[in-house]
Amino acid sequence: MTRILSGKEVAAALNLRLKEEVQALANEHIFPRLATVRVGAREDDISYEKGASKRCANVGVGIENIVLPEDVTQEELLNTINRLNADDSIHGILLFRPLPGHIDDKTVRNSISAEKDIDGITDRSMIGIYTGEDIGFPPCTPQACLEILDHYGIEVAGRNAVVIGRSLVVGKPAAMMLIKRNATVTICHTRTADMPAVVRRADIVIVSAGRAELIGKEYLREGQIVLDVGINVNDAGKLCGDVKYDEAVDVVEAITPVPGGVGTVTTSVLVKHVVEAAKRRLR
Amino acid sequence: MTRILSGKEVAAALNLRLKEEVQALANEHIFPRLATVRVGAREDDISYEKGASKRCANVGVGIENIVLPEDVTQEELLNTINRLNADDSIHGILLFRPLPGHIDDKTVRNSISAEKDIDGITDRSMIGIYTGEDIGFPPCTPQACLEILDHYGIEVAGRNAVVIGRSLVVGKPAAMMLIKRNATVTICHTRTADMPAVVRRADIVIVSAGRAELIGKEYLREGQIVLDVGINVNDAGKLCGDVKYDEAVDVVEAITPVPGGVGTVTTSVLVKHVVEAAKRRLR
Repeated sequence: MTRILSGKEVAAALNLRLKEEVQALANEHIFPRLATVRVGAREDDISYEKGASKRCANVGVGIENIVLPEDVTQEELLNTINRLNADDSIHGILLFRPLPGHIDDKTVRNSISAEKDIDGITDRSMIGIYTGEDIGFPPCTPQACLEILDHYGIEVAGRNAVVIGRSLVVGKPAAMMLIKRNATVTICHTRTADMPAVVRRADIVIVSAGRAELIGKEYLREGQIVLDVGINVNDAGKLCGDVKYDEAVDVVEAITPVPGGVGTVTTSVLVKHVVEAAKRRLR
Repeated sequence: MTRILSGKEVAAALNLRLKEEVQALANEHIFPRLATVRVGAREDDISYEKGASKRCANVGVGIENIVLPEDVTQEELLNTINRLNADDSIHGILLFRPLPGHIDDKTVRNSISAEKDIDGITDRSMIGIYTGEDIGFPPCTPQACLEILDHYGIEVAGRNAVVIGRSLVVGKPAAMMLIKRNATVTICHTRTADMPAVVRRADIVIVSAGRAELIGKEYLREGQIVLDVGINVNDAGKLCGDVKYDEAVDVVEAITPVPGGVGTVTTSVLVKHVVEAAKRRLR
């Protein structure tokens, strides 16, 4: 029987743990608090903002939602972030991107202090991911993948992991995090020759191809653990991942569904990072 | 017949090209110049300094060898680097490491301006390597591997590359550079299970295991390209790589010898980076 790796279950366990940690911090008079910074009113951002707010409320983490007009100047945006950097009551800053075209993404994202970069978008956090040092935070999505593996007690060390995709948001950080955990990691992408053969060799597959239902049964074999990071709408108008779930579920040992998989864990990881940022202040 | 990938030949071709570029820059009144910074008198450093000086002289690149006493203060060392950062006649700075224990490595290496970081030791250069952006420079050794592949017209895109080792000096940057070149890259290390099987699947193998003659014929097959980054002294007191050369040479399609392979190209790459740094100023 294929095991369904339930994001809901992982998030619930994580939230419970976070609640306890938040209570423990309250005893030390520390109250973890997140600030979100949104420019304009893109629907995806609003939806993620709502999700994060709800998750924060559930575990007792404070949240401040800052909304700036679409035509905000870069200077005003930087001032906002600098104010949040300086505000000791804020432990994490989530900046929604992409930013409007008149704003320089690199300047703005790097203005967030690494200690509060709970979504891993600054160069400092990326250095931490690349070198394996404890600087800043990893992006939430690859961390959500590790949370799922850990929750289900799936060993990573010494196993063959294949990461499909080489983005800075999922593929590359996932690869670095798996290497740190002593997996043997292969990174595949659009230019990979005979990708099905490469992916079939993996014990653990993290799929972040960015193409709806790209990965069918020809890529898979018995005994594999498949984490599907994709979130797409298929031709039938239904939410789907980068994996053909119906095909995969008959073949592999364990798989995350879409929806209800990796994406479900992401906001809990975000809140976890806020709590972690608050804890680091105690050091 | 196995092809011997001669570092000497690659370096000679590279030096010739650099000579021409240096002459072209002279016509624009630009004279590339390297500064080396050595603390103390470690034999390895002195030998590399000599090699770099000779290579610079050969292609017409200027060099300034700065030597500081073993007990130099961190402040004095930082002052030296800051002076070199500010000096427009210097295009590249090579800092020998490890530094003495009383000096903070991270602070000092990151004091080098990314534009002059021709050995890729600053966080800025590492960000460039990780993200694939054109910031700073890659470390010289993985770049030497690419120079060898390019010189011999060995295609990288779409092929399976295995990198043995996950250091920041060779393994990780090599992996990132190969991914940028569209190879499918697997990173192996001491915790890899059944490494022979993993390595046998590679078309291109970059070996940076740091163990003398670790890789024997059981890791190899026909048709492979093997770049041996290791430099060790074996039990017989002879210089050797991380690959059992005598075994490998009967099996693979092409291999770098040790000595006379990757290491031979490194100082030419260093000088290439100095010339490149000078050219970037023209942009």
